[in-house]
Amino acid sequence: MVRSVTPASPHVLAKRERRRTQILRAALRAFRERGYQATTLDHIAEHLDVRKTALYHYFPDKESILFECHRESLAELDRLVTEARALTTPAARLRHLIVEHVRVMTDTLDGSPLAFEVGSLAPARQAEIIAGRDRYERTLRRFIDDGIRTGAFRAVDSKVAVFAILGAINWVARWYRAEGALRADDIGAQFADHLVGGLAAPRRRRVAAQRSRRAPVRRTRKETA
Amino acid sequence: MVRSVTPASPHVLAKRERRRTQILRAALRAFRERGYQATTLDHIAEHLDVRKTALYHYFPDKESILFECHRESLAELDRLVTEARALTTPAARLRHLIVEHVRVMTDTLDGSPLAFEVGSLAPARQAEIIAGRDRYERTLRRFIDDGIRTGAFRAVDSKVAVFAILGAINWVARWYRAEGALRADDIGAQFADHLVGGLAAPRRRRVAAQRSRRAPVRRTRKETA
Repeated sequence: MVRSVTPASPHVLAKRERRRTQILRAALRAFRERGYQATTLDHIAEHLDVRKTALYHYFPDKESILFECHRESLAELDRLVTEARALTTPAARLRHLIVEHVRVMTDTLDGSPLAFEVGSLAPARQAEIIAGRDRYERTLRRFIDDGIRTGAFRAVDSKVAVFAILGAINWVARWYRAEGALRADDIGAQFADHLVGGLAAPRRRRVAAQRSRRAPVRRTRKETA
Repeated sequence: MVRSVTPASPHVLAKRERRRTQILRAALRAFRERGYQATTLDHIAEHLDVRKTALYHYFPDKESILFECHRESLAELDRLVTEARALTTPAARLRHLIVEHVRVMTDTLDGSPLAFEVGSLAPARQAEIIAGRDRYERTLRRFIDDGIRTGAFRAVDSKVAVFAILGAINWVARWYRAEGALRADDIGAQFADHLVGGLAAPRRRRVAAQRSRRAPVRRTRKETA
């Protein structure tokens, strides 16, 4: 194979990108095995069968690797939110996020780092990741509040509902094993049935809400508060 | 106040028990703040406004404190299981466990240690805690499987359902703040509605299941609770 020497050639860039992703995956595996604190760059390098120095071409230190893991996951969640917004009902949007977020947890980067502590990051980086998470949580809340307004969901506290949903999803990192008997798709589908279904308004109430919708604007406003 | 010198007097024992509980609470607070690895006995002692040496009357080391935190939580969960078994329907049993387990997370010992790693415990202790957790998980699975059999719940994979429920509950340790606006009781009730409701068989299917049953007495007894 011809080795390109042009730094910016697409081949080199693609290779570099693949390597970068491999390092992030190896790091997440190491963090999972030992916990972030106890993991060293040597442990990460071991997973890739390289020396620690090879990692320095990509990341200056362990914290930068953790930070990039978090950023990649947040970017992935942002993509899911964009997809979800293209769907028409709040229930469908929420369902999409749950199914796909579970997929992110099981497929991407060997266990999402979202479940790992951000406390180890420098303040500015911590703030960026927390802001990203808050944005994602607000989107989930909005989907649920929208569903309450349309009468599809019960009048729950959407904040608490989001915590339940994210707790269930984040916990996947603790128990999921790729080599296990459970298929990632099945987990996502059942989580969506369970966690969206549990918010659904009972049939009678939904029908009643539809019937009484003579002045939908005022009722809607009350339900939002 | 009279200071008893008899080692086994009820007064001394009660005082000792209170102090022990205070240490466990202080330890959990410290573990939450810094993570288990980064916490020292000095940090725990600081919370109690005593010197580290005062802790040695109760626990030989940090690991023993973590172990006792886990054991106390498991003992509490065992009590909840006993209470739940006294209820008559699978849904009521599951509901009781969710509401009360959330209470354990919010009220007892300043954030349950169940969400913390057991990896730091010596193998024999780790095995004891994991066995206790497995026992609890099996109980939850049994309640769900019972509900599927009676037609109250959809035919879900009870293992995945238990992971969703425990994920939601364990995650409480990450976001709950006693001084926050959310009341622990309200969280438990909403979690139960959400997580038991999400397993409920659609009305039509439940009615169908009831119709096909020849022995109405059993049905009545189960459904009343």
